[in-house]
Amino acid sequence: MTEAVTRPTLEAVAARAGVSRATVSRVVNGGDGVRERLVERVRQAVDELGYVPNQAARSLVTRRHDAVAVVIAEPETRVFADPFFALQLRGISKELTAHDSQLVLLLTEGRDDHARVGRYLAGGHVDGALVFSLHLDDALPGLIRHAGVPTVFGGRPGWSDGTHRAVYVDSDNRGGARTAVRHLVGLGRTRIAHITGALDQTSAVDRLDGFRDVMADADPRLIVEGDFSPAGGERAMRELLDRCPDLDGVFAANDITAAGALRVLRERGRRVPDDVAVIGFDDMLPVAEQTDPPLTTIRQDIEEMGRLMARLLLRRLDRRNADGEGEQAPDAGDDTAGVVLPTTLVRRASA
Amino acid sequence: MTEAVTRPTLEAVAARAGVSRATVSRVVNGGDGVRERLVERVRQAVDELGYVPNQAARSLVTRRHDAVAVVIAEPETRVFADPFFALQLRGISKELTAHDSQLVLLLTEGRDDHARVGRYLAGGHVDGALVFSLHLDDALPGLIRHAGVPTVFGGRPGWSDGTHRAVYVDSDNRGGARTAVRHLVGLGRTRIAHITGALDQTSAVDRLDGFRDVMADADPRLIVEGDFSPAGGERAMRELLDRCPDLDGVFAANDITAAGALRVLRERGRRVPDDVAVIGFDDMLPVAEQTDPPLTTIRQDIEEMGRLMARLLLRRLDRRNADGEGEQAPDAGDDTAGVVLPTTLVRRASA
Repeated sequence: MTEAVTRPTLEAVAARAGVSRATVSRVVNGGDGVRERLVERVRQAVDELGYVPNQAARSLVTRRHDAVAVVIAEPETRVFADPFFALQLRGISKELTAHDSQLVLLLTEGRDDHARVGRYLAGGHVDGALVFSLHLDDALPGLIRHAGVPTVFGGRPGWSDGTHRAVYVDSDNRGGARTAVRHLVGLGRTRIAHITGALDQTSAVDRLDGFRDVMADADPRLIVEGDFSPAGGERAMRELLDRCPDLDGVFAANDITAAGALRVLRERGRRVPDDVAVIGFDDMLPVAEQTDPPLTTIRQDIEEMGRLMARLLLRRLDRRNADGEGEQAPDAGDDTAGVVLPTTLVRRASA
Repeated sequence: MTEAVTRPTLEAVAARAGVSRATVSRVVNGGDGVRERLVERVRQAVDELGYVPNQAARSLVTRRHDAVAVVIAEPETRVFADPFFALQLRGISKELTAHDSQLVLLLTEGRDDHARVGRYLAGGHVDGALVFSLHLDDALPGLIRHAGVPTVFGGRPGWSDGTHRAVYVDSDNRGGARTAVRHLVGLGRTRIAHITGALDQTSAVDRLDGFRDVMADADPRLIVEGDFSPAGGERAMRELLDRCPDLDGVFAANDITAAGALRVLRERGRRVPDDVAVIGFDDMLPVAEQTDPPLTTIRQDIEEMGRLMARLLLRRLDRRNADGEGEQAPDAGDDTAGVVLPTTLVRRASA
């Protein structure tokens, strides 16, 4: 076994390699402009002495990189197409910047890339992770647990076995859905349809549950699965009109789904809200104001969700670094909590 | 000076701290769920032995993290509001993913945060960086040079002293601008205005130069500075109409600027293209197809620019890691080159 040794210095490496301090510094920082022969000599000296560059050494001691990863379990095309993510990132960015912590957004083309994300998280490049838009069969939660970085989730994760503790921030999806459907009922609508979100996400499942809370005996043909996208909303609305031409209300799982549904209703000559009242979820601007007619919807504060996720994570990191106040043992169970933000009805013209 | 030592193992740390390998692993990987007392013991053993965690040790030897940073010198609000960046990132993401390299997007609130980005780049978390949308007075280029990571720029950097070598990918901004203005001239327009981009960016300066190449004796009141945004386009168009009510053609520095200009022309009752012909730059979809009337523009392949930036960087990293083919000395000067992609005229209805 190795005995305790003084940590070797940059000077020691320079002396052994027979080069200047600057050259060693350039080589170990991955910099350009050093001849390969010298690079080799420096690397050999580094290996022989077991030298750890300053930054890595410092991180090893303080365990702080002042950087937080954000992982969105969606392809980058969707991250940039759906304004939901930009809003959530806005909240995160403001909060991290206020604490001089770097936002490190790990983009992927799809779930095939999640293993690589897991490797990056495990590689000691960030202090923690903010993860959102999980799908039930995503490997990400397991990869993140394995990486061992403190994590806060956006949206309640859908662990099926109930054994995984998680800190998460969510909106009151079920309560908001109930408010939406009750609003349609209050307008005298009786044939109320629901276009769901992607049902492998807990937010979509919760909103469907809220719909069912109010419409316990709804005709099952009035529920069609969407995917939180405008195209999904169009497709679902066509199917609903074919199945149930007499429907008089639609609760769409989010605003961009509602925007797609409104286009199809107009195409088919239905007046909104006279023939069919439509309500969305999100209060995503400018979308909800620019639909024709402007969209009545359930507001959730997406930017605040992002801000709160970042705040909870930073607080957890601070607690861990505070003197005498260490990380709790795994069974302490004090941070299993989800924070659930309220939702409110925003009335415009569509319902 | 320290003598050569065997690099201490995880086992050695575990033995010295009197804990299991798993506990050491969890502590050095920044993981949760270890009692503070044990964390302290492990940290002490790590310090005493000068232990380097595997990942860091491996990176130190191979100097590969299989991760590339992307830095956009704009606030995150702009990154998500301007589709230009999403397109460039799309090209980058496809290319990096094809090479199993993680895209690490470093977002900021503004240039006050660039020092922190520089620290992250210097911290040994990525193999290289792709940097775009630089402004003349940005500190980023200096910070990046200091960080010493191989870098490819999107858009020709505007070094004033000409001494800094840089690899960059750009479009033929000047040639494209000439094509745009010649097209307006070919339509018989004689009072042709130019709404510039942000003139602290080389792309805007090059497009202005292209405008001047064709309109050498243009009335200076026909040139108004914009900022590549729709609001900037609206403001500039109002100013132009106030100054020169007889103008009959507008070359806008990009499509979203042109979209703003079109809104103001409609407001003021000018018919496009009958009264005023308008041409943009980018061929940004769906923007250019959805303006009223659809926009004639100069096409640049933004996604391909991103792909090419990533490809050039990965090639450079491969070259550096290839056996017997090391990084060149700083004065070798073989990679000063910029790659300039061609632009083409796309005719729609506005000119």
